[in-house]
Amino acid sequence: MKELKVDLQDRSYPIYIGRGLLQKPQLLRQHIASKQVLILSNETVAPLYLAELEKSLTDLQFETVIIEDGEQYKTLDYVNRVFDTLLEKKFSRNATLIALGGGVIGDMGGFAAACYQRGIAYIQIPTTLLAQVDSSVGGKTAVNHALGKNMIGAFYQPQCVIADTQVLNTLADRELSAGLAEVIKYGLIRDLPFLKWLQKNLDKLLARDPDALAYAIERSCVNKAEVVAEDERESGVRATLNLGHTFGHAIETGMGYGQYLHGEAVAIGTCFAADLSWRLGMMEELDKQKIIELFKQAGLPVEPPEMSVATYVDLMSVDKKNIDGKIRVILLESLGKATLPQSVDSAILQQTLTHYTG
Amino acid sequence: MKELKVDLQDRSYPIYIGRGLLQKPQLLRQHIASKQVLILSNETVAPLYLAELEKSLTDLQFETVIIEDGEQYKTLDYVNRVFDTLLEKKFSRNATLIALGGGVIGDMGGFAAACYQRGIAYIQIPTTLLAQVDSSVGGKTAVNHALGKNMIGAFYQPQCVIADTQVLNTLADRELSAGLAEVIKYGLIRDLPFLKWLQKNLDKLLARDPDALAYAIERSCVNKAEVVAEDERESGVRATLNLGHTFGHAIETGMGYGQYLHGEAVAIGTCFAADLSWRLGMMEELDKQKIIELFKQAGLPVEPPEMSVATYVDLMSVDKKNIDGKIRVILLESLGKATLPQSVDSAILQQTLTHYTG
Repeated sequence: MKELKVDLQDRSYPIYIGRGLLQKPQLLRQHIASKQVLILSNETVAPLYLAELEKSLTDLQFETVIIEDGEQYKTLDYVNRVFDTLLEKKFSRNATLIALGGGVIGDMGGFAAACYQRGIAYIQIPTTLLAQVDSSVGGKTAVNHALGKNMIGAFYQPQCVIADTQVLNTLADRELSAGLAEVIKYGLIRDLPFLKWLQKNLDKLLARDPDALAYAIERSCVNKAEVVAEDERESGVRATLNLGHTFGHAIETGMGYGQYLHGEAVAIGTCFAADLSWRLGMMEELDKQKIIELFKQAGLPVEPPEMSVATYVDLMSVDKKNIDGKIRVILLESLGKATLPQSVDSAILQQTLTHYTG
Repeated sequence: MKELKVDLQDRSYPIYIGRGLLQKPQLLRQHIASKQVLILSNETVAPLYLAELEKSLTDLQFETVIIEDGEQYKTLDYVNRVFDTLLEKKFSRNATLIALGGGVIGDMGGFAAACYQRGIAYIQIPTTLLAQVDSSVGGKTAVNHALGKNMIGAFYQPQCVIADTQVLNTLADRELSAGLAEVIKYGLIRDLPFLKWLQKNLDKLLARDPDALAYAIERSCVNKAEVVAEDERESGVRATLNLGHTFGHAIETGMGYGQYLHGEAVAIGTCFAADLSWRLGMMEELDKQKIIELFKQAGLPVEPPEMSVATYVDLMSVDKKNIDGKIRVILLESLGKATLPQSVDSAILQQTLTHYTG
């Protein structure tokens, strides 16, 4: 087992990465201070891992909320269902919420914990590659709004993150690829050696080689933890983790949540950011091509769905990186080096959008 | 104009108290860093003061959300209406929300600001006595849930609080009395000299003597600011501000939000806490009587509405001060001295409840 630390003064916490961690009750229990525990999970994950988890909690008052699986359920209404249960069961402010699932469950569970009685403890047990390498770490919690992805949320750190790599064995291929989009992102924005390793080892990852997966998860979490420790509330460098996300979120919102997996939309969005970086003279065309090839090799889409340029611009104009309503995006200076959010000449943005959306 | 400071390191902010502050645009504008401003208000306050406020903002993009007046509208659904407008108008993370109204507007507006894009700036312009002396200060934001008052929320501090005492001229008598409940609370929990001043000057306050009101608001805010600076997230002494609130919230929730004003429920709840303190041998019967008399003199109810003892116990068992579901209340050791939250022998709790609801 590897143990990493997210270094945030009194909000610091460990990330545990390893095989079979769900079978180690002590790991979990040392982070639960209360007698009341609520587990939030979904209909795909609960049948596979809930019983195992409950074995660690038999002496406590534990309750479960199981919701449908998919991005379209990451809403204020579904968070309210969590509040319903917490209140019906008279959960106190010293209770703990456990989010057992992928990014949707982690984001929602974290937000529910952030708001219930103005904040209760929570623990992330991510069960998808995407959640293990990205969304479970760093305390960004949120739900979607019909008009914009992740628009309602809080910065709220968990007590710990338990990433059991064994659960990836049951992950659908499509979900595995989606997770690789965020793994590749770390290479692109700040870790060229890791990017080169990924170019060489992508086939191993797709074949779920345990050692390769463990290494990719660890390197991703190290990168994430460093960035979050430097800029918890995204006043600067943390925004680089949003490479490809402005365009990606527009796809997710515009096509209807759940049509594209988050990682798929990010892959397309990153190709878009690479194209824009090339058009702005920041990046070589060859490097742009390498990025597109890498995503293709990872089994990810690289062409956006059909929406009008006007729709893309409209959706991108609702983004947390924007200032006074003006679109700002993360660009690439080179492989392994991202820029801070930049406003982009709208003519060039139009060129990329037109090129991309036909 | 008086200026007090809430001392919370990088989250510190000023409270301005004085006559005619709404007519001083500079006061407000120095705390707005963005070009986008949303004003949240209600149907009672907006016709009186919105136009005045808008005069200070004509060069900005400002939008308004006006909701019905009353505690029953302090819900997640109504907060979502604020999100709708923020997103429709493409408000960015550097936008500012202004809460113009009483405690309901301040609590909801603060919570909307806490959650929109994981946190935007907000400014409190309290227009009721209760909001000026209590709810606008200290960063407790929340909405109600059908099963419990203020159960969904965040600790989230404003940029500043602007308390224009002139607006109290248009306040309904019932609202004025409700505000006095929280004013008296400060005397009871930690400020005996202020309590004695209140006993002498209550008639002046009820007659809206400007100097008396200004003094009461200032002393209340000084007390609140001191407590909040010591314990922002209520791990200790801040809970004493909740004197009378456990029982009070049960009344508000049980009778249906909006039936009792918050201050009215707190007055009854404080009589309850005084009775309990007396039964536990902590407080003289004479002091208990003095408390009841003071609330009566302030035009406040001191007898609880009819609900069964079981209903009271059930509602009180959902309270943020509870631990592992066990009821804990704030008691009084003497006039001017509150205890930290205490669990209470259930037989004695029953005695008080039976006596009170009998």
